[in-house]
Amino acid sequence: MYRAPVADIRHSLLHAADLGKAIENGRAGDLTIDLLDAILAEAARFAEGEIVPLSYPGETSGALFERGRVTMPDGWRDLYTRWRENGWNALTGPVKYGGQELPTSLSAAVCEMWNGASMAFGIGQTLTIGAVDAISAHGSQALKDIYLSKLVSGEWMGTMNLTEPQAGSDLSDLRTRAERRGDGIYRIFGQKIYITFGEHDLTDNIVHLVLARLPDAPAGVKGISLFLVPKFLPDEEGRPGRRNDVVCHAIEHKLGIHASPTCTMIYGDGVGETGEPGAIGWLIGEENRGLACMFTMMNSARLYVGVQGLGVAEAAFQKALDYARERRQGRSTLLAKDRAEPNASAQVPIIEHPDVALMLLRMKVLVGAARAIVHNCAHALDRAETDENERWWSERANLLTPLAKSFPTDIGVEVASLGIQVHGGMGYVEETGAARLLRDARIAPIYEGTNGIQAIDLVSRKLPLSNGDALRDYLAELDAIAEQVAASNREAFGETAARLREALQGLKETSEHLMNLVRSGALSQALSGATSYQRQFALTAGACYLTKAALADAASDTRATLARFMADNVLPETEALRRQVLGGSESLVAAREALN
Amino acid sequence: MYRAPVADIRHSLLHAADLGKAIENGRAGDLTIDLLDAILAEAARFAEGEIVPLSYPGETSGALFERGRVTMPDGWRDLYTRWRENGWNALTGPVKYGGQELPTSLSAAVCEMWNGASMAFGIGQTLTIGAVDAISAHGSQALKDIYLSKLVSGEWMGTMNLTEPQAGSDLSDLRTRAERRGDGIYRIFGQKIYITFGEHDLTDNIVHLVLARLPDAPAGVKGISLFLVPKFLPDEEGRPGRRNDVVCHAIEHKLGIHASPTCTMIYGDGVGETGEPGAIGWLIGEENRGLACMFTMMNSARLYVGVQGLGVAEAAFQKALDYARERRQGRSTLLAKDRAEPNASAQVPIIEHPDVALMLLRMKVLVGAARAIVHNCAHALDRAETDENERWWSERANLLTPLAKSFPTDIGVEVASLGIQVHGGMGYVEETGAARLLRDARIAPIYEGTNGIQAIDLVSRKLPLSNGDALRDYLAELDAIAEQVAASNREAFGETAARLREALQGLKETSEHLMNLVRSGALSQALSGATSYQRQFALTAGACYLTKAALADAASDTRATLARFMADNVLPETEALRRQVLGGSESLVAAREALN
Repeated sequence: MYRAPVADIRHSLLHAADLGKAIENGRAGDLTIDLLDAILAEAARFAEGEIVPLSYPGETSGALFERGRVTMPDGWRDLYTRWRENGWNALTGPVKYGGQELPTSLSAAVCEMWNGASMAFGIGQTLTIGAVDAISAHGSQALKDIYLSKLVSGEWMGTMNLTEPQAGSDLSDLRTRAERRGDGIYRIFGQKIYITFGEHDLTDNIVHLVLARLPDAPAGVKGISLFLVPKFLPDEEGRPGRRNDVVCHAIEHKLGIHASPTCTMIYGDGVGETGEPGAIGWLIGEENRGLACMFTMMNSARLYVGVQGLGVAEAAFQKALDYARERRQGRSTLLAKDRAEPNASAQVPIIEHPDVALMLLRMKVLVGAARAIVHNCAHALDRAETDENERWWSERANLLTPLAKSFPTDIGVEVASLGIQVHGGMGYVEETGAARLLRDARIAPIYEGTNGIQAIDLVSRKLPLSNGDALRDYLAELDAIAEQVAASNREAFGETAARLREALQGLKETSEHLMNLVRSGALSQALSGATSYQRQFALTAGACYLTKAALADAASDTRATLARFMADNVLPETEALRRQVLGGSESLVAAREALN
Repeated sequence: MYRAPVADIRHSLLHAADLGKAIENGRAGDLTIDLLDAILAEAARFAEGEIVPLSYPGETSGALFERGRVTMPDGWRDLYTRWRENGWNALTGPVKYGGQELPTSLSAAVCEMWNGASMAFGIGQTLTIGAVDAISAHGSQALKDIYLSKLVSGEWMGTMNLTEPQAGSDLSDLRTRAERRGDGIYRIFGQKIYITFGEHDLTDNIVHLVLARLPDAPAGVKGISLFLVPKFLPDEEGRPGRRNDVVCHAIEHKLGIHASPTCTMIYGDGVGETGEPGAIGWLIGEENRGLACMFTMMNSARLYVGVQGLGVAEAAFQKALDYARERRQGRSTLLAKDRAEPNASAQVPIIEHPDVALMLLRMKVLVGAARAIVHNCAHALDRAETDENERWWSERANLLTPLAKSFPTDIGVEVASLGIQVHGGMGYVEETGAARLLRDARIAPIYEGTNGIQAIDLVSRKLPLSNGDALRDYLAELDAIAEQVAASNREAFGETAARLREALQGLKETSEHLMNLVRSGALSQALSGATSYQRQFALTAGACYLTKAALADAASDTRATLARFMADNVLPETEALRRQVLGGSESLVAAREALN
């Protein structure tokens, strides 16, 4: 049974990221350590006590679709209502509209718990956060007044409508059309696919943010506008009134997250009560500037997808650990040699077998590294809001965002798959729940920009930030961690310092290599190494963060032994990645023809 | 749609393994190139034309359980009947009982096609092959006369009943009991779980091989006996007669292979028509020597599970390749720079994006490497049957078996997961079929000895064969491949020779390290590196085999560019594995406490 890892999350926030220092220096707004602890404890209580019991039943029954309606699993509407009434949806929203304006890093921390308890449940909120961000930044005052307090409280939920069958990763061919009807009102016509929580019965209204194209818009992504399209048009009192002309046509039959409805939405099919065809929408931001509006919420949207991967990975680790402690097989005790007689008659828990312990430790350090990257990215987003070095922190957040999206979601799949392996045959049986975590985790490397697209973003847009200084500043910070552990002389770290230095040296080499390629216009060659570089970067940063967190924990060597395990057993993988970045391009081009 | 990769299979059999030379030198029995080609072509026709159309419908409906009966998906009984009537089940069986006694390498080749078309369908046969092997090697003449021709033809299917709830990887705690009733007849009582094809309606009878313990048997694995327990007792004419006291209690709700019923079997529950309780069974081999009997079929059973992973991986690769050629997104053409204008208005197929091409090429070379390892292991098994150097070939087969089981099944999961990623959002939707391949593939690293157990076997039992000479002979052969490519001077190989030499150097280092540990009794430490070593070994051997196969293909550089891609982009991963083997143990022991 999932237990919110409060101590690990707290330590990571405070010491792997710098929330501890920020609170000390008065740079975290009203947040205090006591408040942090209270919130984490309350969130843990809710996740464990309220979400967990409905998680597996919800997965089993799934969201049901019938004639335009989506019925959520039994108990989920009440669950959602309790969750939002406890204020969880309002954590980061603007105070003016009923929010608490707490840092994103805190929101990421509790969001990990929702996703650890049930990824299908955790997803919903992140879309509403995106809608709040977009309306706050770009919406008219009228739109803010009508929608923001409902969305901040979670009384209504938000959605993002980007994808169409022919326009996924590349939105330039988007065809949904918007027609001007005066008074700032538009009519929207078209079909959107893969719309998470596009239709459901958790809330009385749903606020769709929809990308569409005006008749006179330029071709490509510079002709896309963003519209707010509510399911029900609010009446004079702001209550859901007439039905808008938008309907869920079907939901997808997916590998996982069965309780999260993934909808095909039809706009302008004539089903509404609006008098004429076309879904009524209001422009957010300026005409043809829709993509820019979406971009303002991209960082946090991507961060929250990373949090999904993280939450599932932690859940998979815990489940495998529980099983490995209980399940007994085999007598050759190996790791248990100090605990039991060799050849004793009792079978040992499988955790005592090196192969199983190695899998569990790999899972543990990958989760810890992913969490640290997420928290550092979230902290940078927060500081970009409040710090005088707004630009510096903003670049830091930009730099870390592709890592915070891709690494936790990649390791989410890896850790969930290892979790199945630890369970043996039991892992393949659905009732155990381990397989479900792999099914859930598998979407996260895909949506909100595939991890390959994150890598392209990292190499082509983030490395060049401030002419490479954003990256160099960051690498210098990681260097400092390596030097700190070298100076610490704590035996528990073993050769961690040497391993970090070596990995950092490799990372500098590939970074310079790719920056040079980008600078010289050899983008194609640079992108051949992008995915390997992204992984090399994240593994190195993650290992440094685990070390940083361990250095801050003088009371026990446990974290130090984990940092060392990562340095010895995982970090060497960066060497292969380094070589792929430096030398893989030529053989890719040569071998490409073999795919014809 | 799956297409049997006949040309790749043929080339791998003949040139990555040495079937070509063996045929030339008259060491492949009656097999000729013409016969090989005819069989591969016929198998491809059956797989594509007959199995493929029923594969997805079968997965969707799955095997159904009701009151002790399992109903297979619509059309599967007819499919199975056509398949066995075409002689496919009899390929390797003894001529005396209606088989064709063709080499296992040929059987592995066509079995890849069954699994590529439908893993759930492909599994069944391998259990029957196991039963034929066990009865042939250890059964009484009476048992052979009654059962072998039915099993060789596939008129009846076989099963393996090993696992019990408390006895999985470790069979020493097995509790199913057998009672002697005179006349060589035994009564069996107990429960078995995870019995693949334990009950179904494909055939009129099912022949269970069951491990059980006699009342006076020694404790542990030396007190286990093997029994033949038919579902229906054959009558005087050998037709299914009275119902035996064995029944399917339930089937598992699994992540994948939904058309393959995984059964809980109850023996001796009083459901039979045998007059008294207890399933009637006949001893195979000697009392208390059941595990040894099982071991005689272990190598080929493990090989065939490797073939399952391979078949699914090939199917996943093909599906992703088809999609990547068709799906258009994005305009920055990169790899397509010679094919289209940059910034041309048409979107390019996603295969032109480096990230996608890299995934596809990785899939392609991993599949090729896995296939070559499978074929080499199968060829060694064949030669161990027929060659004067029986012992040498037998050791070679023993050495390669853990690699042939673990590597194709590990990469089966990896390749299927990459296949989903190539599809983007479409990959997560079940109708596409990509997700199903991951669900299917995920069992193969678990059953027939988890891949962790394969690694233990490799290090603790296979490395010491002939005091290490079996391994050293093998490494010398791989060395020769590296020298051959160095001498070839073919430009298309790039730096392949250097990469192979380097990887082989690392493999020798870890091999000696582990052999020394095993020799000195430091088994615990050796096993800490076992899984990494197994992967290092397989990647190195696989890269050598791709090179060997490419060297034999002078007509085109395509295979050479693939070998080079593997050497440049995959093989560097062995360096991290080398380090994990050499240095990971200490940090494992230190970090183990962090799991408490």
